[in-house]
Amino acid sequence: MRTQQIDTPAVSPAAGPPAQTDAHAPAPAQRPTSPTPEEYGVGARFTLLPLTDDFVAVITDALAVDPELRAGLEVVTDDVSTFVRGPESDVLGYLTAVIARAGRTGVHTVAQVLLSRGCPGEVACEVADGVAYAPAPLAPIPATGLRAAAHWSLYPLHDGPDGDHMTAIYAAIEGARRRGTLTRGEHFATRLDGDLADVLTTIGDAWLTVGRSVRHVATHATISLNSPSSVDSPSAPTSAGDR
Amino acid sequence: MRTQQIDTPAVSPAAGPPAQTDAHAPAPAQRPTSPTPEEYGVGARFTLLPLTDDFVAVITDALAVDPELRAGLEVVTDDVSTFVRGPESDVLGYLTAVIARAGRTGVHTVAQVLLSRGCPGEVACEVADGVAYAPAPLAPIPATGLRAAAHWSLYPLHDGPDGDHMTAIYAAIEGARRRGTLTRGEHFATRLDGDLADVLTTIGDAWLTVGRSVRHVATHATISLNSPSSVDSPSAPTSAGDR
Repeated sequence: MRTQQIDTPAVSPAAGPPAQTDAHAPAPAQRPTSPTPEEYGVGARFTLLPLTDDFVAVITDALAVDPELRAGLEVVTDDVSTFVRGPESDVLGYLTAVIARAGRTGVHTVAQVLLSRGCPGEVACEVADGVAYAPAPLAPIPATGLRAAAHWSLYPLHDGPDGDHMTAIYAAIEGARRRGTLTRGEHFATRLDGDLADVLTTIGDAWLTVGRSVRHVATHATISLNSPSSVDSPSAPTSAGDR
Repeated sequence: MRTQQIDTPAVSPAAGPPAQTDAHAPAPAQRPTSPTPEEYGVGARFTLLPLTDDFVAVITDALAVDPELRAGLEVVTDDVSTFVRGPESDVLGYLTAVIARAGRTGVHTVAQVLLSRGCPGEVACEVADGVAYAPAPLAPIPATGLRAAAHWSLYPLHDGPDGDHMTAIYAAIEGARRRGTLTRGEHFATRLDGDLADVLTTIGDAWLTVGRSVRHVATHATISLNSPSSVDSPSAPTSAGDR
């Protein structure tokens, strides 16, 4: 399936992210022949880190989300991270729900999130040339009421002669600006601030936007909630006592 | 400087990582003309996460490493992560020292580490074509006596016609196997286990190994210490109560 040629709708940089958040957009015509998450390698790894002596209880409760939110997802936890595989919208919805449950305890909690598509294999995954597959838009994620701050990195990993990852990345950044979550670019990362749902949707939309021109796309974000040193102004003085 | 052509010694996959840990290797001939960490964009972002009510004290103490260890490094902390820029060996030595100080408290601590080279800019960094620059080997890092488990991802971001990132990645994985830190490949990540210094050296060596054939290379690792669910056997049953 990795070498299958699938037509994908052209996306203009400026229109990219908004189009992906239109829940009423028709499903792509090639939907019936689209690869499965297992075939294309679609999913996430995340590590939930509540900074409290009671971290086990907070994590265990956070994972006890509505079973409907993890229906259709493969979820495997080990001592370092949790692997989640499934359709993009389901993965983002599940991550938002789990992180939000931990955040609602009021405990300073950091979530490390990795999203990957286009690499069914492992670290040495080699993705064959071919037209990238882009799925249906992400389903909207309801606001959580929780403010999140994130350092976000985006990695397009297929620069074949047909590659045009910079156009897609600029579209992704423009998408964050339009969504109101873009704070600023920083070395090795982009700073996002906003409701946890908006921050995760920004990251997920960018992952899909780049995925329309690049087959293998990974994105990492360190997302912080309830930080004792966070402030309304993202550019306020920083604290060495909290990362 | 990003388009400067710099000859780099050919590295055979099998010989890559071991050669990079030879402290007696002569400095590359082109050393005097090598780009600075600022020019080439060499550094890290890390987030130190002690899972305890006293996280501020643990983090503050961890950052109080021997000033010599951060001499020559630019270190800037904000409420999400800490940016470190400088020569590769200095960055790895500093990260090991800071994470080890937190680990020696016995508190379950997770460090999220991002290493990047070849991209002086931000998320939309565009690295010009050209021969990759590879620095001198990493300086050896003394064992810490702390066992670490990591989920590691490696991203070569320059697939020009001269790109050969897969050869370098296979060399990096072989390097981990030779170092004894390679546990197994997993979806979206590779599992490493061993002394914290060996785990970070494995990641740093791979970062440099790929950097010899790919200009822009980023690598992420989630590194866990003192996990209540960690065990001697990396393949033992996992726990949902701890990530």
